[in-house]
Amino acid sequence: MTSFDLKVIGQVESPLTEFDAAPRQADEGAPAAVLVFVPEVLGGLRSLRQGQEVLLLTWLDRARRDVLSVHPRGDAARQEEGVFSTRSPHRPNPIGLHRVEITAIDGLRVRVRALEAIDGTPILDVKPLLEEDISLR
Amino acid sequence: MTSFDLKVIGQVESPLTEFDAAPRQADEGAPAAVLVFVPEVLGGLRSLRQGQEVLLLTWLDRARRDVLSVHPRGDAARQEEGVFSTRSPHRPNPIGLHRVEITAIDGLRVRVRALEAIDGTPILDVKPLLEEDISLR
Repeated sequence: MTSFDLKVIGQVESPLTEFDAAPRQADEGAPAAVLVFVPEVLGGLRSLRQGQEVLLLTWLDRARRDVLSVHPRGDAARQEEGVFSTRSPHRPNPIGLHRVEITAIDGLRVRVRALEAIDGTPILDVKPLLEEDISLR
Repeated sequence: MTSFDLKVIGQVESPLTEFDAAPRQADEGAPAAVLVFVPEVLGGLRSLRQGQEVLLLTWLDRARRDVLSVHPRGDAARQEEGVFSTRSPHRPNPIGLHRVEITAIDGLRVRVRALEAIDGTPILDVKPLLEEDISLR
């Protein structure tokens, strides 16, 4: 397969340190966290605002990349599904997609409410939410 | 910066061939397209269903990666914003995020309605939509 190179633009700072103990989704008791960006991308952050909801893309570097089927939510009682029908971190490109609310911004440090990614998780991108993302069709 | 390696798991087949002429969002007249996956990931596709809406992640390989500020929607009359507050393809990691509806599945070929990515765009991941993605908070 052809491949491309990802740049790490920051890291998650979180009290969560255990991959296996992390909540599966943000609304399942995930703590607040700080997104710590590298100085090179400061200009890209300048229009972010406190109170805004954004999409955070991370690289789940503890995940396995050779997995194509999983038991949903790790529950062995449930039938295996193809990974592209699940949010399992284990998949060919373990990109995490997290909807987060910004609660404070201080230069390269962006504080968010309820993030299920663990401490040290590399950050790849931040995108605004669009109306079409959240509308029910 | 540290970096990670992305695997290309498929390609977009689309009548859109011009990067600059592509619609900016799917609801702006984007045509139907086919997601053509590589045989190595077939097992990951097996639980996808016709009629389902999914999130498609692509690598926008024509984009510039050294851009941190853009005029929203390319409109020079609008003030520049940090790229992390826009959906511009030009950003440090040009990952495209597209909400698409599956209209047909034939082995490694998955047909979707209204996709704004151009022909040949590399595919990185497919994820199901979660309730928390689309709910208004």
